[in-house]
Amino acid sequence: MQVGLVGLGKMGLNLALNIMEHGHEVIGYARTKATVDKAAAQGIKSAYSLEELVGQLKTPRLVWLMIPAGLVIDEVIEQLLPLLTPGDIIVDGGNSHYRDTLRRYQYLKEKGIRFADSGTSGGMEGARYGACCMVGAEDEVFAYLEPLFKDITVPGGYLHTGPPGSGHYVKMIHNGIEYGMMQAIGEGMEVLAKGPFKLDLKAVARVWRHGSVIRGWLMDLMESALSKDATLESIKDIAYSSGEGLWTVEEALRLKVPAPVITAALLMRYRSEQEESFATKVVAALRHEFGGHDVARK
Amino acid sequence: MQVGLVGLGKMGLNLALNIMEHGHEVIGYARTKATVDKAAAQGIKSAYSLEELVGQLKTPRLVWLMIPAGLVIDEVIEQLLPLLTPGDIIVDGGNSHYRDTLRRYQYLKEKGIRFADSGTSGGMEGARYGACCMVGAEDEVFAYLEPLFKDITVPGGYLHTGPPGSGHYVKMIHNGIEYGMMQAIGEGMEVLAKGPFKLDLKAVARVWRHGSVIRGWLMDLMESALSKDATLESIKDIAYSSGEGLWTVEEALRLKVPAPVITAALLMRYRSEQEESFATKVVAALRHEFGGHDVARK
Amino acid sequence: MQVGLVGLGKMGLNLALNIMEHGHEVIGYARTKATVDKAAAQGIKSAYSLEELVGQLKTPRLVWLMIPAGLVIDEVIEQLLPLLTPGDIIVDGGNSHYRDTLRRYQYLKEKGIRFADSGTSGGMEGARYGACCMVGAEDEVFAYLEPLFKDITVPGGYLHTGPPGSGHYVKMIHNGIEYGMMQAIGEGMEVLAKGPFKLDLKAVARVWRHGSVIRGWLMDLMESALSKDATLESIKDIAYSSGEGLWTVEEALRLKVPAPVITAALLMRYRSEQEESFATKVVAALRHEFGGHDVARK
Amino acid sequence: MQVGLVGLGKMGLNLALNIMEHGHEVIGYARTKATVDKAAAQGIKSAYSLEELVGQLKTPRLVWLMIPAGLVIDEVIEQLLPLLTPGDIIVDGGNSHYRDTLRRYQYLKEKGIRFADSGTSGGMEGARYGACCMVGAEDEVFAYLEPLFKDITVPGGYLHTGPPGSGHYVKMIHNGIEYGMMQAIGEGMEVLAKGPFKLDLKAVARVWRHGSVIRGWLMDLMESALSKDATLESIKDIAYSSGEGLWTVEEALRLKVPAPVITAALLMRYRSEQEESFATKVVAALRHEFGGHDVARK
Repeated sequence: MQVGLVGLGKMGLNLALNIMEHGHEVIGYARTKATVDKAAAQGIKSAYSLEELVGQLKTPRLVWLMIPAGLVIDEVIEQLLPLLTPGDIIVDGGNSHYRDTLRRYQYLKEKGIRFADSGTSGGMEGARYGACCMVGAEDEVFAYLEPLFKDITVPGGYLHTGPPGSGHYVKMIHNGIEYGMMQAIGEGMEVLAKGPFKLDLKAVARVWRHGSVIRGWLMDLMESALSKDATLESIKDIAYSSGEGLWTVEEALRLKVPAPVITAALLMRYRSEQEESFATKVVAALRHEFGGHDVARK
Repeated sequence: MQVGLVGLGKMGLNLALNIMEHGHEVIGYARTKATVDKAAAQGIKSAYSLEELVGQLKTPRLVWLMIPAGLVIDEVIEQLLPLLTPGDIIVDGGNSHYRDTLRRYQYLKEKGIRFADSGTSGGMEGARYGACCMVGAEDEVFAYLEPLFKDITVPGGYLHTGPPGSGHYVKMIHNGIEYGMMQAIGEGMEVLAKGPFKLDLKAVARVWRHGSVIRGWLMDLMESALSKDATLESIKDIAYSSGEGLWTVEEALRLKVPAPVITAALLMRYRSEQEESFATKVVAALRHEFGGHDVARK
Repeated sequence: MQVGLVGLGKMGLNLALNIMEHGHEVIGYARTKATVDKAAAQGIKSAYSLEELVGQLKTPRLVWLMIPAGLVIDEVIEQLLPLLTPGDIIVDGGNSHYRDTLRRYQYLKEKGIRFADSGTSGGMEGARYGACCMVGAEDEVFAYLEPLFKDITVPGGYLHTGPPGSGHYVKMIHNGIEYGMMQAIGEGMEVLAKGPFKLDLKAVARVWRHGSVIRGWLMDLMESALSKDATLESIKDIAYSSGEGLWTVEEALRLKVPAPVITAALLMRYRSEQEESFATKVVAALRHEFGGHDVARK
Repeated sequence: MQVGLVGLGKMGLNLALNIMEHGHEVIGYARTKATVDKAAAQGIKSAYSLEELVGQLKTPRLVWLMIPAGLVIDEVIEQLLPLLTPGDIIVDGGNSHYRDTLRRYQYLKEKGIRFADSGTSGGMEGARYGACCMVGAEDEVFAYLEPLFKDITVPGGYLHTGPPGSGHYVKMIHNGIEYGMMQAIGEGMEVLAKGPFKLDLKAVARVWRHGSVIRGWLMDLMESALSKDATLESIKDIAYSSGEGLWTVEEALRLKVPAPVITAALLMRYRSEQEESFATKVVAALRHEFGGHDVARK
């Protein structure tokens, strides 16, 4: 297959190499020349504009977007539309909100452009050596793309989840679960670090990787992180978030699904981003009011 | 009545004045001479040792302990025991854990000393002008003490909750509820402070005091705190805790009562005391491992 | 003043009587004739259509909407618009989402209709005998309406919170805090009910009303509810919600304000509405898978 | 090696077979004859009393306890003590609370009996084909036992965590993390089940096993459970717990580590065990009191 890849960032470049290694042709485009050049140095065919990118693709063209969620995707689609012809395919391989994906699918359908959304998991390593792809697409579109998904994923690592939007939906929930799991690991590790035994956290993470109930890739990464910095002293205690945890919580609320664990994981990230908690100041002030309890003053 | 008051701190001194104003005689003792002198200056009869305190009391002696929960209470009881005679009464008016209270009640009973536990709410203002007392005691002991409780509380503000221990139990839960309410107010106030409207928080607290569903003393205190510092800028965002919130959570866990709100209120206080969250560092490290996401470095 | 009141339900009828008793003229309209007749029997002037309602009002007309949040409000506004003339005033006294309120304000402004949103707290009793009103309105509109708000609220019980939308915003947060407080009380009561002491919960609620830190209207209502049914045996354990708790949580998420207590209160309501928790089934199934733990079978 | 195994339940029998297959001699004892016979049928040497068990062991004897946490362990130890001689070793391979373990270690040390605690993870399958063992023991004891641990675990699947007690401590936290992870998966699955797309949950679990960030053994089990019952309709929504989640939460509280995710996971299990939530009834009653909101009546 021939793939026009828009976006050559951390995920995009790894994916490009992955696709290429499986015998497909990749033409890569990114907004900055330096990014394209860097990809070109690794063997990716380069395009310095969307026109150039589309110009190198045979119909039906396949354009894979690997760019951050948000309005940029709509902009790129608008720029692509005049260049594409009916029957061409756009794949959104990023973390778009499934409602945006549904809207884009409908919009593109009216223009005769086919569409698939691929929730892509596995991090940079997955993008490079075998990802996990949750694909929302019409049956015919999925059938056309399936060989590509088979190549770029680990064995068993792709699924046609259903109609367009469903791929990003399943990926959103995947990330919500990930939030909960990561916070659970963090809490457990903190207890271990503060508990009565002097433990080698890296060795604990390692043994948990082998045969335990909680073994899995996150535990593999836990050992890896602790191998680099056994006490995590180089890392600040701020955990950012990029949207999908929030979306999962919002979706759960919408469906009235009580999701206290995923929600708590999200809220603790938000708390970690705060320089100051006004809610806490209120609590401290109230304590002082009724009990004359000491309040830490600035 | 004649009351020997052990402990003349924030709560103790106010309570002493309250008792005295209702025509009772108060002999006050505290560990430091300066504290006793300060109370004496306000008309409290002074005792500079427990011996002196007990020496001034007629039998059956009534000794009211108004000292922080913890081992000090056991120490004071041990020091009092040789000075007291069977039939004397010890009241623990502080925030002891109800299990300690049960133990002390049994211990004192064997020595012939009568006992009551009074969970005392209402803050310093309540101690001074009318508290809320939840009293655990044998019926006969409560009947003897009732006139005193009637005097030092607001109308309707005392209750014989049941046998010894029950007063502190009910007070413990009272404080657990208080934790939840305070955190709820804090969260709401923080949303107001960060929301799209420029609001006068003090005015909001004030209007909520009058006719709203959430009116109550905590809202009165909220207005008071905001009157002194409209943005709480002088207060650090650290909310300490003194035990009863934790005990409520532990008791709920023991009884398998899901108490997520009281628990979350407690955990947010603990979070506020942390200089650094190791759990968050773990989450940040894991994000970096799989996604190459930026991690804040020290 | 002359008030055209749309909506004569639980809140509307009580408010109508409240307004009337303060010397204002109330013309009441509701969708069903029976509701209007019932109000008329209590002295409210009746209107059986919006036309009839508006026809009885002198300019500048004042139409107060006291109907549930949602699309009905837009419908009523559309029906009113041809009947009103520039300078007339619409007050939305219900629990509309502040974003809907902002939209309606803009829309009505273009038509020359003035607008105010009144977050109205205090329940049915407040509507009848003195509410708490948080009023969003332009200064000139608020000044015009102020005498009415002064009359229908308890002393100190109204506030001009700011521009249109701010009244509903503040009321939304009020309700969020209310969710947290109610759940905190519920959790505490459940511990008391299951704890080691046989307690008279009604008496506990009563003593907490007098002098305690957590005294307030919710505790008054707690005693009232337990007076009617000491064990709440007549009530099912389902707690519905009508939107504002959810909106508060959504707003907190939007602003990245960690609000775990208000959120947990909402989630426990959602949990209470579930006939079956699929999440729990997953947990039970997983336990069974790895440990052969007993799983309750249907 | 020669291992005297006390307890031939789900975990014990599997472990016995595992040990035996690695060339060790296992003498198995259980309280009921039928259980011993069943083990004997699979080749385990049988003992119908502790005396018989100990009688077959050569010194230094190795007795491995694989019985549920709780007082039974102390009973068995008391029964074993007169039969053992100094230098013999007891291994507690179950889920004892680490404080009990510390106490037992001290107690046995005074008697000259050596001790190790092995937190054993991996479920029945792990016990049978390769577990994960977190071992607390004195260095010399661990060194002596290491060949056995190497044999019964998967490669990399054992760790000398530190002194006695540390094995059970690390296992306790492992299980706490497990609680959080399982609830996170449950919540995500529930959103998928109720969301806008008709998804094949089993297929989703399967694809997540291959290349996703949340891949791991729990996801393997998720697919397995859904393979047997695609909608989990045969399972009741009750998730029991056996102690270690609670202990983790208690330990976190003791250390003031905010662990909202593990705690929420535990509370949702407790909630699932409730036939009726009194807290919810309180919330419903309060709503009815102030707003006249409908309350579901029995």
